[in-house]
Amino acid sequence: MSSENENGGQVTIRHVAARAGVALSSVSRTLSGHPDVSPAMRAKVEEAVKALGYEPDFLAQSLRSGTTRNIGFIIRDIANPLFALVARACEQELRRNGYSMILMNSDGSVETESKNLMLLRRRRVDGVIASLVAEDSPYIKKTILSLRRPLVLLDRDMKDLNASAVITDHYTGVFEATKHLLDKGHRRIAFVTGSENVYTTRDRLRGYRAAFTAAGEEVSEKWMALGGFDPEYALVHTRNFLSKNPRPTAIIAGGIGSTAGSLRALNELEIEIGKDIAFVALDEWPLFDIFRPKISSVYRDAQAMGVEAAHLLLEMLNGKNPSESVIETKFTARTSSEGGL
Amino acid sequence: MSSENENGGQVTIRHVAARAGVALSSVSRTLSGHPDVSPAMRAKVEEAVKALGYEPDFLAQSLRSGTTRNIGFIIRDIANPLFALVARACEQELRRNGYSMILMNSDGSVETESKNLMLLRRRRVDGVIASLVAEDSPYIKKTILSLRRPLVLLDRDMKDLNASAVITDHYTGVFEATKHLLDKGHRRIAFVTGSENVYTTRDRLRGYRAAFTAAGEEVSEKWMALGGFDPEYALVHTRNFLSKNPRPTAIIAGGIGSTAGSLRALNELEIEIGKDIAFVALDEWPLFDIFRPKISSVYRDAQAMGVEAAHLLLEMLNGKNPSESVIETKFTARTSSEGGL
Repeated sequence: MSSENENGGQVTIRHVAARAGVALSSVSRTLSGHPDVSPAMRAKVEEAVKALGYEPDFLAQSLRSGTTRNIGFIIRDIANPLFALVARACEQELRRNGYSMILMNSDGSVETESKNLMLLRRRRVDGVIASLVAEDSPYIKKTILSLRRPLVLLDRDMKDLNASAVITDHYTGVFEATKHLLDKGHRRIAFVTGSENVYTTRDRLRGYRAAFTAAGEEVSEKWMALGGFDPEYALVHTRNFLSKNPRPTAIIAGGIGSTAGSLRALNELEIEIGKDIAFVALDEWPLFDIFRPKISSVYRDAQAMGVEAAHLLLEMLNGKNPSESVIETKFTARTSSEGGL
Repeated sequence: MSSENENGGQVTIRHVAARAGVALSSVSRTLSGHPDVSPAMRAKVEEAVKALGYEPDFLAQSLRSGTTRNIGFIIRDIANPLFALVARACEQELRRNGYSMILMNSDGSVETESKNLMLLRRRRVDGVIASLVAEDSPYIKKTILSLRRPLVLLDRDMKDLNASAVITDHYTGVFEATKHLLDKGHRRIAFVTGSENVYTTRDRLRGYRAAFTAAGEEVSEKWMALGGFDPEYALVHTRNFLSKNPRPTAIIAGGIGSTAGSLRALNELEIEIGKDIAFVALDEWPLFDIFRPKISSVYRDAQAMGVEAAHLLLEMLNGKNPSESVIETKFTARTSSEGGL
């Protein structure tokens, strides 16, 4: 394999060997970091590499080492601003450590996700970081097990996969948010979010239920819509809740898409948040602070999630066992959770 | 090179040859799409591939074909919601055509961008799609020329690079937006955006100036802040404009980051858009429609930009000459451009 220098000329490992006055195999051993290379040999080869502007070829290196230094990153949708922040931080951290990120969107489809995983296997990525669409798909489990490469899950709880995970402590933030609404006197608190087949929803629901229990109130299933993280699902189900009599006095929207859909429904019906109804968003996004009125939220640090995911993967690549890293959440009451009563 | 079947066993090209009862070289020729393969041979090999669950190995294919089917995608910041939409659409389109996307953020730095380009060259990507930080860096130009792979630029005008480009017609949208404000009687229309060393700003500025000229009014440089697309720059310069006496009666913010920064400054000073001051944003983002008040904007289709970028690259990979694709813009007046006078 050859690489090109900045003037477009072909500089190969043969040129390096000729310039250094050593055997081709010596250059190869030196470049692959073989321990059996004398300091004098290393110096000669490095001088020639520098003088000729030789760039070690990734493809050739991959064949020698069996690694590609590529990491697969699978998410539902990079256009979700939370995932975009995770991806940015993760890419930067991987790059700093000599790895590149292959990005794949699963478009919320288990089938696409599975195809992506198989493609990453064929591409011989060194590891995978994934926010899976669902935890209960046996097909995905089988595909993942066949990957046999280090895997870091984002906010998923699948103990039998031998994977590391960046897990969010949703419980704490959602408990506080629900308690805040209950303390104000709300009882009909609608909860619109994705399905319980992911840890994210289950842990949020645990916080929601616990706050009701702590307040000595009963949770009613009729105010829960747990079917999808997409804006369309939240739009339809928020509309539906608002058409009921009595309607909810407060809404908790779980996730960026759910928040968008719920707010669309409220706009459409000209119901003002922070006045006609109390509203809490779970997760913030980059332009969150310029919204009016100010939206009460449960925040988690997406940047930290991305950096942690990269670290956990790098640890596994260095032979460590899978482990878990927990990201905290924090509820902040702002204008949008006023009113409604 | 070997690949793994779903049960984790090693299935190599040798197993395929044995099962098909043909020579190793025949399997290799068949899998690489060599024209000199009989239909009978092809059928035998394909049967064996299917029966054994053999997956052609990308690394081995890359060595045979000299291509990696990887495309580099370099942007300032994937957390910019406009770029995230472009990246999503582009990734989907590339994937549909058998290519994967290696994502790299340049963090707004020419140095990082240049390093990323060199890294992509070493990784032997088949092509690059890039939104460059600046058009006037001779260093970047040199790096790009040494890439010697098909290149598609996003909204950059660099004719001497032999690159394709997805270009936005900013002129039309910004002309209409500025005309709208001038028609209402605004004269002190501040323009806050990135530097003129990218086409994006130059074309927007052309529309802004042309509207003043068409209205028989003079443009004043003192209401232009053309130094950065980041929120911090817009925050500082919007603050500065608002401290002047008289202050601007309208603000045009060019880009997602500029809009965020300008709106932050206005929030901070409790100046209400659509009432105390007129405001127009250039570019929309996914959650744009749920803002209150509704923000007047110049819209461009980020999804179309991503798909077009993929198409232009695929055309070049198929041997076509570089070409340009133009994305339209459209101004829509909403509540935020009311008031201010």
